[in-house]
Amino acid sequence: MHSENNSWILSAQCPSRLGTVDVVTRFLKEQGCYITELHSFDDYRGGQFFIRAAFLPEQADFDGDGFREQFTARASAFDMQFELTPPDYRLPVVIMVSKTDHCLNDLLYRYRTGQLAIDVRAIVSNHPDLEPLAAWHGLPYHHLPITPETKAEQEAEVRRVVEESGAELVVLARYMQVLSPELCHHFAGRAINIHHSLLPGFKGAKPYHQAYEKGVKLVGATAHYINDDLDEGPIIAQGVEAVDHAHYPEDLVARGRDIECLTLARAVRYHLQKRVFLHAGRTVVLTG
Amino acid sequence: MHSENNSWILSAQCPSRLGTVDVVTRFLKEQGCYITELHSFDDYRGGQFFIRAAFLPEQADFDGDGFREQFTARASAFDMQFELTPPDYRLPVVIMVSKTDHCLNDLLYRYRTGQLAIDVRAIVSNHPDLEPLAAWHGLPYHHLPITPETKAEQEAEVRRVVEESGAELVVLARYMQVLSPELCHHFAGRAINIHHSLLPGFKGAKPYHQAYEKGVKLVGATAHYINDDLDEGPIIAQGVEAVDHAHYPEDLVARGRDIECLTLARAVRYHLQKRVFLHAGRTVVLTG
Amino acid sequence: MHSENNSWILSAQCPSRLGTVDVVTRFLKEQGCYITELHSFDDYRGGQFFIRAAFLPEQADFDGDGFREQFTARASAFDMQFELTPPDYRLPVVIMVSKTDHCLNDLLYRYRTGQLAIDVRAIVSNHPDLEPLAAWHGLPYHHLPITPETKAEQEAEVRRVVEESGAELVVLARYMQVLSPELCHHFAGRAINIHHSLLPGFKGAKPYHQAYEKGVKLVGATAHYINDDLDEGPIIAQGVEAVDHAHYPEDLVARGRDIECLTLARAVRYHLQKRVFLHAGRTVVLTG
Amino acid sequence: MHSENNSWILSAQCPSRLGTVDVVTRFLKEQGCYITELHSFDDYRGGQFFIRAAFLPEQADFDGDGFREQFTARASAFDMQFELTPPDYRLPVVIMVSKTDHCLNDLLYRYRTGQLAIDVRAIVSNHPDLEPLAAWHGLPYHHLPITPETKAEQEAEVRRVVEESGAELVVLARYMQVLSPELCHHFAGRAINIHHSLLPGFKGAKPYHQAYEKGVKLVGATAHYINDDLDEGPIIAQGVEAVDHAHYPEDLVARGRDIECLTLARAVRYHLQKRVFLHAGRTVVLTG
Repeated sequence: MHSENNSWILSAQCPSRLGTVDVVTRFLKEQGCYITELHSFDDYRGGQFFIRAAFLPEQADFDGDGFREQFTARASAFDMQFELTPPDYRLPVVIMVSKTDHCLNDLLYRYRTGQLAIDVRAIVSNHPDLEPLAAWHGLPYHHLPITPETKAEQEAEVRRVVEESGAELVVLARYMQVLSPELCHHFAGRAINIHHSLLPGFKGAKPYHQAYEKGVKLVGATAHYINDDLDEGPIIAQGVEAVDHAHYPEDLVARGRDIECLTLARAVRYHLQKRVFLHAGRTVVLTG
Repeated sequence: MHSENNSWILSAQCPSRLGTVDVVTRFLKEQGCYITELHSFDDYRGGQFFIRAAFLPEQADFDGDGFREQFTARASAFDMQFELTPPDYRLPVVIMVSKTDHCLNDLLYRYRTGQLAIDVRAIVSNHPDLEPLAAWHGLPYHHLPITPETKAEQEAEVRRVVEESGAELVVLARYMQVLSPELCHHFAGRAINIHHSLLPGFKGAKPYHQAYEKGVKLVGATAHYINDDLDEGPIIAQGVEAVDHAHYPEDLVARGRDIECLTLARAVRYHLQKRVFLHAGRTVVLTG
Repeated sequence: MHSENNSWILSAQCPSRLGTVDVVTRFLKEQGCYITELHSFDDYRGGQFFIRAAFLPEQADFDGDGFREQFTARASAFDMQFELTPPDYRLPVVIMVSKTDHCLNDLLYRYRTGQLAIDVRAIVSNHPDLEPLAAWHGLPYHHLPITPETKAEQEAEVRRVVEESGAELVVLARYMQVLSPELCHHFAGRAINIHHSLLPGFKGAKPYHQAYEKGVKLVGATAHYINDDLDEGPIIAQGVEAVDHAHYPEDLVARGRDIECLTLARAVRYHLQKRVFLHAGRTVVLTG
Repeated sequence: MHSENNSWILSAQCPSRLGTVDVVTRFLKEQGCYITELHSFDDYRGGQFFIRAAFLPEQADFDGDGFREQFTARASAFDMQFELTPPDYRLPVVIMVSKTDHCLNDLLYRYRTGQLAIDVRAIVSNHPDLEPLAAWHGLPYHHLPITPETKAEQEAEVRRVVEESGAELVVLARYMQVLSPELCHHFAGRAINIHHSLLPGFKGAKPYHQAYEKGVKLVGATAHYINDDLDEGPIIAQGVEAVDHAHYPEDLVARGRDIECLTLARAVRYHLQKRVFLHAGRTVVLTG
């Protein structure tokens, strides 16, 4: 919220143990850090602790690097991994698309107007269609076509573009290619995908036809991290939209667009606000 | 809505063909029936037509039987099946439960206060626990315990109770037994079940543990007709509720209760208002 | 839905009376019009009847003008006003904006991709800021600045632009000027406005500050026709979004953007699909 | 959630100042309290700090009174008000009703099944109608009729019943009498009311008729604390439900029932879980 704009974020996780909160909050106090929002959760099943603190430094010349260095010693005693994020941070991202542009258009709008603190470094697509949209936003567009024969090369090229761009997150905004297990593994935890999940889940070919046959009354969208299994990674956000009998299969596809946009944007926002923690194949999302 | 209370309902379906609306509306006009609400839908994929008309007879001594008789001739020319439902109709139902009572309590509250135009003829359970709740409402409670050995007998008894009660609908309000294929078939289209579907669908054992492992952000409920496959019948209504990482598997179970109540009640209401049409394994629900 | 794309729409209203449905459906039958979806409602309080039929002509050379001419005689016997809309109809609109572009961006996206069957004739603004967005879509942009002294002239210019464009609907997509009573009256029923309504309604200055002071948990949006009172016209669609204590007044403003976009787009869609009927200061919206 | 069941809750608030988090978390660490969930928020506009910690004591013989006593010294240095709530705490409540029973039925169901950790001490009503419902739950029912002449006496009696019952919260579950300013003041912050708020807010006589005239598409419910102004107190929870043109004023009333039940139950749950903080006429609700 408001105070977020000028707050630093300290986010961390470690194995559950007495004193995990104290090691963080005591240090923040000692450093003269004024906590505006704090949220921690201890997962008793997973035996893991998660914490996120938004704070304002009291002194004007607050030194992030010095903070990191000094906190490292304390954190290591708890096997704690942490990140310190400055107030003016904009997450560098690469967006991958095919021909469908509703999610891309939505992300670029939020990017252009500063509603989403991302720094779009490049757009990658296996089709040339969305180049004009990228151009209007002054963004590099890499058209990397793919065939079964060239898949390995194309994915190598995708990796190269992402690496050279300095992106910390890849957003699969309706990229209609199945990534190879290698690329999934490479991007694990660093790539967010949106897929049109349905209630109940319909797997296999033509999911919307299956959903239509059952007469579903809701269509949904799931934003999740990629892991080794493309469509089954840890869930970050989900949304639904009502439909009825008058929605033929092609209408179900269309109907899901708005909820896909909103759900993907929400997931990216949670990620860049350092609200999402990955552990043991699932997420903890410290909202509110 | 309001005018529903004193309206007759004519609901019908037949194969798609020119003139299906006209055969209904012309007859209503001829009979001096004042239409307050009309909804029709022609499913081009299924090739089937559905219509629902709420109307007020102009003459005070409107004769339902006469109406049915006269309309039969016209309807048969279109292979049209129809139902005429009077304004004061209360649907006779049998409710089946186990030990969990949230759906039962909700249904009985709506029944007792007249919010749901059902006439509860009996409650059937494989456990004795909910007898006091039935007793307070002055309703017969049939405790029919079940074991693998007695399943066939118990189900025969269930059928007998339903038949003798005159129920037109069986509501499975968290009845935790898997009905035999025979009983499913027997009740096909005449029994509504509620089950906790999830996004994406988790099948097999311990669905809530699977959902927890994935970190789902929504839990859902699906009310559907029973057909030969217990949990896969045509969907009537669906709902969802938000959850987060702090919901352990046992919390996910608890969290779904409110949405199960609301979704089941909505499905029963649509059914008794003759808004739900079954055709070729899916539903058309003419709401609003 | 699907069949809408190639269906004609007949929409009509008249005073309540026996036979209102029949006069429509009988004529459609006689003309060989195959009804794919039909919805009628008779408002007993207002004493007014509303009907909307989607249909496919049986003959290839269906003549809309001939249909209109022939139906006029029948309709006039019921004091019925009707509209016949062809399948390929795109509603000509003028969009009015100020500096805020979330609703404009959303509408133009849906326009550009054909998701919303509008034909944007011009964009009118009292500021120059959004001209590039219009330019990228190849749309004329009329910058008509306004001061208290020039209000009358500016509004005359707005009327001229709208008239010359041939627009049938004006969409106020966050146009931050209060229209004069004369212009409101001129556009009555032909202009849709979106405003951030709150729960409960806060009127007067700084509504978001009032809402913050009360600690509202929901912010909303209302799309409505303009009538003589700018913010109080007949409601077409409404939506809400959850907020919490961490939303300061400026956050409440930001939070409402997504729901404003969705609600305005839905209202425009209902309007162009001829689902919205205006009568006695309120709307009847025949959805589904 | 799960761990809540056996967690102690420490909730506190004080003026904003550096070190407010640390004074709480350091003490919990020193006392060997294992924090399972922690949430704090510092309201920069109000200049007030809020914190809620759920924790499990390490030692089996944890002494709540000793904890309170020792923490008092530290807290007072920060002008901090705090509450310590044990895991097996059940909030003693008095429920006030008139003739409408949907909220009462819902609350008593959640009470009876242990879903809501309340201890219903008594039910107070100005009508005798709901006595049987109370009786079935084995609860004392105080029928305290009211007339303009006896209002002062009746309210004195209400206060007496509440005091003698030891209730810490009064739940106005559709109590259709306007409390006197004196009683409002007396119950300020200790009584939760549910009222059917609408979008936009309609005040004055017959709000549902006003809402109908405007053609609202949503009806809502607001649960709030009572303060000196009965219907305008600090908001705890809000919900909405969709409606359409076919909902006549009397239908709007009926339609709001489900959302009133859910919203009131949610507000009572937040309150008893010590998630709701009152400050300067508004609430901070630390959920999730």
